[in-house]
Order: sequence, then C-alpha cells, then structure tokens
Amino acid sequence: LTSNLIRCLGTTEEMAAVFSDDAVLGAMLEFEVALARAQARLDIIPPDAADIIASAPAPDAARIAREARQSATPAIPLVKALRAHSEFAHFGATSQDVIDTSLVLLLKRAAGILARDSARLDQSLRELSDRHAGTVMLGRTLLQPALPITFGYKAAGWYASVRRSWRRLSGRFDEALRLQFGGAAGTLASYGGQALVLAAELAKELNLPAPGPPWHTQRDRLAAIVGASGIYAGVLGKIARDVSLLMQHEVGEVAEAGGGSSAMPDKRNPSGCVVALAAATRMPGLVAQFLTGMTQEHERAAGGWQAEWQTMADVVQTTHSALAAVAGVIDELTVFPDRMRSNLDQAQPDTGAAEHFRRQLLEE
Amino acid sequence: LTSNLIRCLGTTEEMAAVFSDDAVLGAMLEFEVALARAQARLDIIPPDAADIIASAPAPDAARIAREARQSATPAIPLVKALRAHSEFAHFGATSQDVIDTSLVLLLKRAAGILARDSARLDQSLRELSDRHAGTVMLGRTLLQPALPITFGYKAAGWYASVRRSWRRLSGRFDEALRLQFGGAAGTLASYGGQALVLAAELAKELNLPAPGPPWHTQRDRLAAIVGASGIYAGVLGKIARDVSLLMQHEVGEVAEAGGGSSAMPDKRNPSGCVVALAAATRMPGLVAQFLTGMTQEHERAAGGWQAEWQTMADVVQTTHSALAAVAGVIDELTVFPDRMRSNLDQAQPDTGAAEHFRRQLLEE
Amino acid sequence: LTSNLIRCLGTTEEMAAVFSDDAVLGAMLEFEVALARAQARLDIIPPDAADIIASAPAPDAARIAREARQSATPAIPLVKALRAHSEFAHFGATSQDVIDTSLVLLLKRAAGILARDSARLDQSLRELSDRHAGTVMLGRTLLQPALPITFGYKAAGWYASVRRSWRRLSGRFDEALRLQFGGAAGTLASYGGQALVLAAELAKELNLPAPGPPWHTQRDRLAAIVGASGIYAGVLGKIARDVSLLMQHEVGEVAEAGGGSSAMPDKRNPSGCVVALAAATRMPGLVAQFLTGMTQEHERAAGGWQAEWQTMADVVQTTHSALAAVAGVIDELTVFPDRMRSNLDQAQPDTGAAEHFRRQLLEE
Amino acid sequence: LTSNLIRCLGTTEEMAAVFSDDAVLGAMLEFEVALARAQARLDIIPPDAADIIASAPAPDAARIAREARQSATPAIPLVKALRAHSEFAHFGATSQDVIDTSLVLLLKRAAGILARDSARLDQSLRELSDRHAGTVMLGRTLLQPALPITFGYKAAGWYASVRRSWRRLSGRFDEALRLQFGGAAGTLASYGGQALVLAAELAKELNLPAPGPPWHTQRDRLAAIVGASGIYAGVLGKIARDVSLLMQHEVGEVAEAGGGSSAMPDKRNPSGCVVALAAATRMPGLVAQFLTGMTQEHERAAGGWQAEWQTMADVVQTTHSALAAVAGVIDELTVFPDRMRSNLDQAQPDTGAAEHFRRQLLEE
Repeated sequence: LTSNLIRCLGTTEEMAAVFSDDAVLGAMLEFEVALARAQARLDIIPPDAADIIASAPAPDAARIAREARQSATPAIPLVKALRAHSEFAHFGATSQDVIDTSLVLLLKRAAGILARDSARLDQSLRELSDRHAGTVMLGRTLLQPALPITFGYKAAGWYASVRRSWRRLSGRFDEALRLQFGGAAGTLASYGGQALVLAAELAKELNLPAPGPPWHTQRDRLAAIVGASGIYAGVLGKIARDVSLLMQHEVGEVAEAGGGSSAMPDKRNPSGCVVALAAATRMPGLVAQFLTGMTQEHERAAGGWQAEWQTMADVVQTTHSALAAVAGVIDELTVFPDRMRSNLDQAQPDTGAAEHFRRQLLEE
Repeated sequence: LTSNLIRCLGTTEEMAAVFSDDAVLGAMLEFEVALARAQARLDIIPPDAADIIASAPAPDAARIAREARQSATPAIPLVKALRAHSEFAHFGATSQDVIDTSLVLLLKRAAGILARDSARLDQSLRELSDRHAGTVMLGRTLLQPALPITFGYKAAGWYASVRRSWRRLSGRFDEALRLQFGGAAGTLASYGGQALVLAAELAKELNLPAPGPPWHTQRDRLAAIVGASGIYAGVLGKIARDVSLLMQHEVGEVAEAGGGSSAMPDKRNPSGCVVALAAATRMPGLVAQFLTGMTQEHERAAGGWQAEWQTMADVVQTTHSALAAVAGVIDELTVFPDRMRSNLDQAQPDTGAAEHFRRQLLEE
Repeated sequence: LTSNLIRCLGTTEEMAAVFSDDAVLGAMLEFEVALARAQARLDIIPPDAADIIASAPAPDAARIAREARQSATPAIPLVKALRAHSEFAHFGATSQDVIDTSLVLLLKRAAGILARDSARLDQSLRELSDRHAGTVMLGRTLLQPALPITFGYKAAGWYASVRRSWRRLSGRFDEALRLQFGGAAGTLASYGGQALVLAAELAKELNLPAPGPPWHTQRDRLAAIVGASGIYAGVLGKIARDVSLLMQHEVGEVAEAGGGSSAMPDKRNPSGCVVALAAATRMPGLVAQFLTGMTQEHERAAGGWQAEWQTMADVVQTTHSALAAVAGVIDELTVFPDRMRSNLDQAQPDTGAAEHFRRQLLEE
Repeated sequence: LTSNLIRCLGTTEEMAAVFSDDAVLGAMLEFEVALARAQARLDIIPPDAADIIASAPAPDAARIAREARQSATPAIPLVKALRAHSEFAHFGATSQDVIDTSLVLLLKRAAGILARDSARLDQSLRELSDRHAGTVMLGRTLLQPALPITFGYKAAGWYASVRRSWRRLSGRFDEALRLQFGGAAGTLASYGGQALVLAAELAKELNLPAPGPPWHTQRDRLAAIVGASGIYAGVLGKIARDVSLLMQHEVGEVAEAGGGSSAMPDKRNPSGCVVALAAATRMPGLVAQFLTGMTQEHERAAGGWQAEWQTMADVVQTTHSALAAVAGVIDELTVFPDRMRSNLDQAQPDTGAAEHFRRQLLEE
C-alpha cells in the first residue's frame, strides 16, 4: 500500500507508512472531527453535526490529490467532500489550519519512531566504544596515515555526535508540534468570544499542548526541525563514510553485514553505509528547499508554504532512512582488531589522551 | 493507483503515472526482457530462456521496494525474482545497467510530455503577446513604478525565456537518453567477443540510440538534464511571480481562473501561480541534491548514485507541475487593459523600443 | 581595507572587518602565541620561545593565501613563517587546531555584533507593535484580501519569529565556541602527561571555556550555527518581503526610508528590504554547502572541512547583512494608517483575537 | 591586493584578480565610458562630456562598496561620483545596465582563463590515458573489488566527462555574454529614435555581440552558466575523489605531488584533490543560490537580482579552483602499475571491452 518503488532507498517501510495516503487523509480527518466535536460541545455547531462528520465515509485520497492542484491545497476538496455530509464541517477554519495541524500530527508519530531508533543507536555505539576501548588502530587524516588512536575513541566520537544531534532535533520537535488554528486571517474572527476556548478544546481533543497564536507564515519552528534533521543526517553520513572506507578490501578493518551484488554473488557491499550516504547526499538540498520557502507573504504564502508538505515528508523519511541504515550497520558490525594492528605497523603505539577523551565523549 | 497525497501539489497525475510503481517495474522488466531477447538471438543464453523471462509474472513492487534496502538497490530483489523462473535472467549485466536504463526509459516518456506542454505554452504566450502588443502598462522595478511598457512586451519576455529554456532542456534529454550497459566493472567482460554486438542489439531492442561506453560514474549528462530543468522551473516561477503580483486586488491588472478558499467562498486565489511558485521553491534544492552526488567513487558510487533515482523523479515531476500550472494560467488569463491604463496614470505614455524588442523576443 | 566590491551587498562594513585578512591572520597568530605561552609556562618549550613567537613580525596575508593552495591549508605557510623565528612555534599542534580555533575566535566577535543588533531589532519591533496595536488593516492570504487584522499583530508576528530565531542561534553559538586542540590525530600524543593541563591553559589564555575532546571531524556544533543562521535569515527575509509588498505604490501602507534610482531620481526604492531579500536568497544554498561537507573522513576530512572556512564567513556576513538591513528598515519605517483603513474598505472591521494573540507573541 | 585569506582555498590568484575591486570598478567604468563615447558620437551628449568622463579619477572602491547598501546597488554611488565630473554620465541608462554589463565583461575574461586550463587538462588526461592503455588495475564498485579494468580506460572516462562538461559550459558562456542595455524599464525610452543605434554602438565599443532585447529579469542565460559550472565542478570532484582514494596508503596505486602536514613533516597529503573536493562541496549550494533568485519580479527584481553578483563571482572562482587543482594533480601524477597489478591479484585479467571503450571516450 505504501510502496513507492522509485523512492525505495529514501525511506523505510515504517516511515513511509507515516506519510501514506491513509495516514495523511486520516490526520486531516482527525483535525476536522476534533474541530467539530469541540464546536459541538461549545454549541457553535449543532450537537449531531459532529457525529455526522465523524461517521462520514472517508473521501477518496486519489481524488483529493487530483483536485488539490485546482485550488493549490488538498484542504478544499477534502472540505467539499465533508460538507456533502454536513454543512458544519470545517466551520470557521482555514485550509492552513487543517494542513498544518495534520502535518504536526504526522510529525509527532515520526518523532516517536526516530526517538526509538536513536536510543537504540546510542546504545549500540556506546557498547561498541566500550568493547574497543583498548583496540589500537591507525588514525587517518586527509585519507593518509597519521598517528595511532583507538577504535573505541573513534566510536565514541560517532556516539557523541549522534547524541548531540538527536538532542537538538528532539528539542525542535517539542517546540514545533503544536496546533495551528487561526481561521482566514489568523484572528479566529468567526468564533467571537468563544475563539480561545475553542482553540483550547481543539488542542485537548488532539492531544496537543495548549495553543498559542497561529503561525501561518512564521515557519521558523518547522524550519528548525528541518535544519536539525539535516545535521543529524550529516553525522550519520559521517559514520557511514568512515565504515565504508574501513571496509575497503585493502583496509579491511571492519565489515558490515552488507548485501550482495547482481553481477558478482560473492561480493559483499557496504549496503547499509550506501543507503545512509545516499540520504546524506539528498539532505542538504532538502534543507535548502525548506529554507527557500521561508520568505512567506503576509498572512498566507503564495508558494513557499505549499512547497513545505512534500519537503517535510522527504526530510523526515530521509533522516529515518539514514538512521535505520546506520543502526543496522553498527548492530552487526564485525571489527578486525588484528588487521587494525597490522595496518598500524608500530611496535609501541602511543594513543595519548584517547581514552580520556573517549570517556568524556560518552558523557555528552 | 498513482496517488500520493503528501506530494499532490508537486506533480501532475500524468507525470506521477510515469514514475508509478507499475511504470518503474515495467521499465526494469523491459530492460531484462530485451537483454534476454538479444542474448537468445546471439546464442548467449538458450533460445527459450528469453520467452520464460518475458512471460514470468511481474514481481510484487512493494516487496522489491522493501527488500531493496538490504542490498542498496532494487535490482537485486528484481533479479532474484526473475531467476526463480530462469537462471539466465540478467546474465552478465550489473545492477546499474538495469537501474540506469530503466530511468532512461522513464525519462524518455517524461520528455515527450514536457515537449507537448512546452509547445502549448509557447503558443499561448506568443498569442498573448501579439494580442497585447499595444496594451500599455506600467513597468515596475524593485516593486515600484518605473516607466511605461506594453503587456505584449512583458509576455514576449516570458515567451523567449520559456523557449530558450525548453530548447536547452530538450537538448540535454537528447544527449542523455542512451543505454547503460557495462557489466560488473564497465567492461562487458562476461560476453567475450560478443559484447559490442550484444550492446547494439540491446539498444535496438529498447529503441535507444547506438550505444557508446558505459557511464556508470560519469553522471554529467543526467546532471545536465537536472540543471536545465532547474532553469526551466525558474523561468516558469518568474511568470507565476509576475502574474500573482499583477493579480493583487490593489493592482488588478490580470486574473487567472484560479481557485477558491475553504474559509471565504468568494475569494479568488492565484492557485496556478501558487503551484508553480511552490515548484520553483523546491527546485534549487533538488538540483543541489543531484550535483552533490556527482563525486562518485571509482566504477560504481557508494551513495551518490543511489541518491539519484528519487531526485531525478522529483526533478521531472516538479518541472511538469510548474509547466502544467503556468500553461493553465496563461490559457485562461484575463487581462484588464483599462486597469493597466489607469494604474499607469500618464496621458502620453512613451513605450520606447518596446515593440521592437517584443518582435525580437518572438524570434528567439 | 576590507572592501570587496563584488560582495558589497552581502556583508556589512563591520562584519567584513571581522573576516578581513588582518583579523583572520590576527586570530591565527593569537592561537599560536597563546599556545607558545601556555607551553612555555609548562616548560614544554623554552621560556623565551613564547616571546620570540609573540614578537615575530606578522607574516604577509597575501603570501599565506597564495601558498595555502599548495598544502590545502593556510596553516602550513603560517607555521613555516613562524618557524623561521622559532622552531618551537605550533609545537605538537595540527593545522586544524589553529584553523578551527581561529574561526571560533572570529565567530565570537561576530556573535557579539549579531547579539547587539538583534536586541536593537527586538526593541524596534516591539515598539512598532505597541504603537499600532489598534491600527486596523487588511490581512492578505495568497496575495489576495482576506479579513481584517491589526498592524500591531502583524509586527508582533515578526517580533516573535526574530526573537525565537535569535535565541536559537545564540544558543548554538554558546554550544560551539570552544577550543579545538587535538594534535595530529586528536590524541594530543605529543605532550605526554601534560596534554590535558596544556589544553586547559590554552583555553584560559584564549578566554574560551574549559576544553573537551577535539571535534576535528564532528562538525555538528558548527553546522547548528549555520542552520540557525539560515532560519534567522529566513524570518528576516519574510519581514522584508512583507514590507516591500506593503510599500508597493498601489498598496502604499508603509514606506521604508529607502534609496534612490540611477535612472529616475524621484523614485523611492525599498533598498533595505532588497538587501535583506538578497541575503535570504543566498542563504539556503550556503546552508546546503555546509551540510554537504559534513560526511568527513576519519580523523581529518579530505575536502569537507576545507570548504567550511569560506562558507562560515559567508553565512555570518549574510546573516548580518539581512539583520542590519531589516533593523534599518524598521527603525525608519513610515506607516500610513489611513491608507490601511481605506484599503480595507469595511465600516466595522472585526479583528477577532488579534490583540490577544499580539500580546502572547510579545511574551515569546 | 587581491588577497582574501578566508577564501584562499576557494579561488586562484588569477581568478581572484578577475573579481578584484580594481577589476570590478574597471569594468563598471568601462561601461560608463563606452556609453558616453557612443552617446557623444551620436550627439546625444556634448562631444567633450565623454572625454571628461573617461578622464575622471577612478572613484574609491571601498567607498562605493560602503554606500552601495544604501541604494541596494553599487551603481548609484558610482554614478554619483561620475556625475560630480559630468552631469552626462550614465545618461538614460539604469543601474542594472552597468552592473550586468560589467559582470559580462568580467565573465568574458574568466571564460578565457577557464578555456585555457580546460584545454591543458584535456591534453594531460588524454596523454595519461594513452600512456596507461595497457596498465591493468582493479575496477572497484561500492568501494569493493569488482573486475579488472585498465587505468587508461579510467582516465579516458575522466577525460570525456571533462570535455563534455567544458563544451557545455563554453556554449553557455557564448550564449550569455552580451550587452545589457534597456534603461529604466527595458524600453530605452530616453533615447527616442536613436535607441537602437546607440545600443549597437555601445556593444561595438565594448567588443560585445550585436545587442538584442534587454534581459533585466530573464536570467536563464546566466543561470545556464551557473548550472554548467556546477556540473563541471562535479566531474572534477569525481576525478579528485578517485585519485584521493587510489592514493590511500593501503591502496597506493597513484600519488599526487601533494603537500605536507604541519604536525607530521613526512606525511604526503592529496592537497590538490582536497582543494578540488572542497570546491565540489561548495558548488551545489552555489548553484541553488543562483536558481533561487530566478523568480524575479516584473522589470527589475527586489532581491533575486541583487544576490547574483556575489554568487556568480563565487561560482566562477570555485570552478577555477577545482580546475586548476585537478590540472595540477594530473600533470604531476605518479602511477604505480606494479601496485595496481598486485592489488588486482589475478593471473590472467580479462579487461573485456575496456580498450574499445577507452578509444570511444577519447573521441568524445
């Protein structure tokens, strides 16, 4: 159902499901039903209108997708479909309220998946570092031999960068995942004195934090998720770069479980690293896409906002693709300490403060 | 079938179909069947192997997508599925041969669609320019009033930029749409003395030009498609920017047919321009994505190549989204010459060489 | 001295000075002198070596720039020049130690300038918002008229986004501005048991926080400055977009002091907005540049790191260009409440919760 | 004079001179003097005005840079300085006429330098390929051993990609290097019936092709230079990636002359490759910057155009930095055929169609 062959390396099955048609449509309907429930409770719309809206058959995703271009938003065909069942659907809200809030609901699920796999990777990297605290190897600079380090120190550098990057990204999710609710011009003017109570009820209904002002054209909080994702993908790419280089036949110091080749069945490829590096290759451009859209006009943008949905879905899926790949690589990494030792070719290697720094890094 | 709600504004139904699972899988199978046919003809594989491969049931796209991450390419699960029917499937070829050639087959279809709609837009812009050769309006610089121009001159500038940009892009398609066929290391070593004849037969089978050397890690021809698409989307975005500004209520000089609003039914939005501007917002980052992947390692890249499929599909769909939107806008554009005249507020406007330049532009 | 005509709109005089040849060379020498002083104090080098290094004539910046390409770093020619005076210069350190630390010293100055102007802009926006709490105007969505808002509410949205964005960027500076000191492979192996004391002394000498492990190929902290700068430039660009649109002759609701035209002396251009929008145009690509370099190899990167210096200098200068421009625009903005009122064309405008939201935004 | 330490790896001395303050100011004055000469010849301005303008002392670049922010263009302070000498300076022209044309004049010089070094690199790569037509080595895919190739075939792949990419870029220069001359709104209205003759005279004076319509907001021709530069830098980066990987100590198949290390004097670094890879890292973002600015408003953009000068200068300098570095690497490359042979570890390597393809590539 969520298959999309052309982007099979750029997402995971689990994260593709978060942004599947069903899930996207579901999140949009979740907003509309919650809005109707809150409005019915406050007597803004008739009591049974909420039930009618909640029990309306789900509109056809393909049809909404098709009609969206006409009005430059999928919200219009969605609302039209719901209003065929109840004229009170989407009462007083604006397209951006449902689109942004549904995105927030999807991002909330995505954040949970990323948190779980980040914790798993943290754990694996910490164990890898501890296990190889005393494994001496060659430090390499500009792809040339430098001085000895330990593999545990190297892994601790990976660990600390992953941890810091996830902490930043996690903080940005916390900051951004909030209700969008402002009505046609961000003033909730349709609801008179009930506007703020309704907003609070709606947020409660959707399990979102107490709402603040709308953020229709203030996109810095979402942009901060995107920026932090770009950095996270970057540190994951660095790990993949290192592993793929260490796994070269001529170096041979580690091996990921890897995958095969269609032409040479015995060949072992650094497939996990490759998937992560592909993600890291695509990410800087995705971040640029989002930032480019930030100069949004007045109270709703003409272009910059409409570019966001797709970019955001790609950003999150790309990040998870890198994370899942690197977590897999690290979980099944084979380390060859003897080869590390023989590549180093020093009788008495001096690893200086490597162990001191390694422990500091594990504290970050 | 090709619905993907989250990217509904970033593609067209027609172009989404070009990159649908069915189409992608179909193109991969087209390569494998053509290869087997050519090989059977040259007695490289048994005569009936080609028929067995051609009549094998199509593998499940979702499954191939899922398994692709394991080996960092969808080619491996595809070949595995085919080899369950005939051990001679994909004989002597490499993953990149089928992936790149299938991409080329898809791009060929995409190029046809773009060519058709580019021609339509050319025609519409030329007519618009001719119709308004004498329609005087305010030229505006830095969003402030400057001197008089004609609307025909303005439209001719749009026309010439579209024409030049399509011509460049079209040339890049011609250059790049060629067979990829090199085997494991780009030498076609599995085929001995038959290698070059086989390559020629395969190209013929696929209706592609006579093949040259493989281009496994020389991606400049594809990159040139991407760069030219970025420029094309940019000139389309400029048209959309202009129209959306002229359509502001306070300016009121043109109106596109446009779309409605979920909160305010009487409101007319520049929906087509918005869709095109969203595409132009996403395009520079997409181009950067592709260029970032160009530093590809040795005879097959570890990351840079694997990032391309998805980016390329997005580039082409985004370009068509912009093109279709602007073509729609121009086809149904209403022009208000009286308002242009009253905004200009000059008794005897002097449009200088506008008409001379307009005619020159229509010759480009 | 710091002139660079080709990038005159992309920086400010003050920030160009932070990255001038004198300042860059000065920061590099500051590191080398501090290192020698700390080493002399710990008897790692002879006591007078530090004085000799400190009093050596400054090397020629142009010559260092020229020779840098030879070794892919300006550190080599710098150290060579110093070692002509004392063989103990740069003892035990690596090129990246001086390059990264000098960058940190420059960024510290840059952060101070940005902090000062951010505070000034905060203040101006807050006052603007308060002054126009009751100034009713048209809210505009997709560049079309929507419902009434207040100009104070609009300005409060600008204010809150600037404040949040600066707060994020400021936090990223705090996190990143730290000593780089690791020696050839990040182990400080040249200093034996004195390594950590030396690092602490060096940090103290440079007024930097107590040092942690080196971060030669872990660039997430610098990347976080870049990402947060990109977002800050984005929100500044949004303000500039809004002001430039409101200043259109046909809208006429605000005017910046602006600049003239070479062809039309009476024309008033939104020059400050234009400078800020140019910065916002360049920023997403600059962020992408930095992120692209993050997949750094092993213990020192071959390309990704060497791309950073220039990008970082551009990022900071571009951000300040936008900030200074927008601060200037807001400080001298003329607002035309009568025009706002007449463009709105409603007898009894209902601004809903605008004032409530405005106050909330001023609390952010 | 042209030193700029912070960007020392991102340019060459020669190309930095092309965009130095002197050169930039010189190109602007060249336009103004040529304009005055052509106007004097046509009796549009008094005969001696041209001489007065031509002999006016050059304005101070630093001062023009400083004042440019005020009006969002260096043209205004330049013209002001010239008009202190003759009121006829810049008569009837617009800021963009002088800025764009001066950029074109600078690009023309840059194109000559790039052409010269491209030819040199072509030649070196062709010779390298011929010399090693029979040097067998390991083909590597996904950084793992694949099948045998020849080093001559590998070098021929580099050659052909460089040649194709330069050919594209060269074509784009030819297309774009043309006069900009349109006056305040692109109609040359100030000159009445003499407009077109004046334009032709001006172009002749500047040694530029016969002028067509102005292209104030149609930036596709410049964008095509930028895109083609990005691709050129990409193929150069691929060569640098390959060489730096082959030069790894553990692989040891080639060595560039390289540079030293500040911490380890005996170390040999792939400095040329590093400089080229740094350029390739920065290029995709630079291309994105330019494309982002393409949606230019009406008859002169408010932001998009003003971002171009700096980006274009960076694009060209970055391209030349990569080109000069790779040309240096190839010119002094040491190849170790014995090591290639021993890394391959096959008694009877079969290089298939490698030699056939090599010859085809040299024909491209």
